Amino acid sequence: MIERYLEDFTVGQIFGSGRIVVEKEDIKAFAAKFDPQPFHLDEAAAHDTIFGGLAASGWHTAAMTMRLLVDSEIKPAGGIVGAGFDEFRWPRPVRPGDELRLESEVLDVRPSQSRPHQGLIKMRTTTLNQVDQPVQVMIANLVVLRRPGSSASAIQGRG
Amino acid sequence: MIERYLEDFTVGQIFGSGRIVVEKEDIKAFAAKFDPQPFHLDEAAAHDTIFGGLAASGWHTAAMTMRLLVDSEIKPAGGIVGAGFDEFRWPRPVRPGDELRLESEVLDVRPSQSRPHQGLIKMRTTTLNQVDQPVQVMIANLVVLRRPGSSASAIQGRG
Repeated sequence: MIERYLEDFTVGQIFGSGRIVVEKEDIKAFAAKFDPQPFHLDEAAAHDTIFGGLAASGWHTAAMTMRLLVDSEIKPAGGIVGAGFDEFRWPRPVRPGDELRLESEVLDVRPSQSRPHQGLIKMRTTTLNQVDQPVQVMIANLVVLRRPGSSASAIQGRG
Repeated sequence: MIERYLEDFTVGQIFGSGRIVVEKEDIKAFAAKFDPQPFHLDEAAAHDTIFGGLAASGWHTAAMTMRLLVDSEIKPAGGIVGAGFDEFRWPRPVRPGDELRLESEVLDVRPSQSRPHQGLIKMRTTTLNQVDQPVQVMIANLVVLRRPGSSASAIQGRG
């Protein structure tokens, strides 16, 4: 496993991911624990709701996305640690049987002014279903450790 | 259970919630499935990370927040359905034994121009720990059904 320091990320870099098939029973189990609403729990009850059928909780989609990120080749040194989000939305529902994968693009890389041993990368991660439709779009600011001994100017020069 | 239509929400309205105690084993179980990183899985491994000790996955905090929202008195007609977020961040970690509760405030209420039977409310939900420190802040845009027979002007007049 390669761990990437801040200096190893560049704007425009793209990462893929593995895939997760979303099982109906997993949708219901997640919902029963964290989001017990009819459209996430039961096919018949879901039919007459805004979703028109069973759909995964958005938080389940977010959690599966995190699993794909952790298992991907992104591997920031110090872990995947979110400082906040510039954008976060679910353009369409995730249905039973959908197969999800990620496309992540680095949008910005910058050293911290106040914490010389770390920096931030801004990354857009789009979660796509098996017909390449986005089901989640998030732009996250991630805290990433700097390579020991590096200087701020070394990064800014790569801009 | 009272269901609230768009017409029942007003700017400045505040909702509380029940409470959830975050058990150490729940932190580890959620992380094992969705966010298997050392600082969410193991006390010893977490010690030398950015969190300085075991912390819940942010997605676990988000999922517990959703459970508190669903169980609260907010009860929008048609369910709690997020269209997107204006803000979403985790100001500090959630630790084993923390007790979480919510404070939600309605920031905006508006009928949809294109879909006369529904509208949007903007709501800030702050997840607080047992010493009233925010651990998650989100501003969500929620799709809410309009009361059957109501008109757009009836809402706009409540401003």
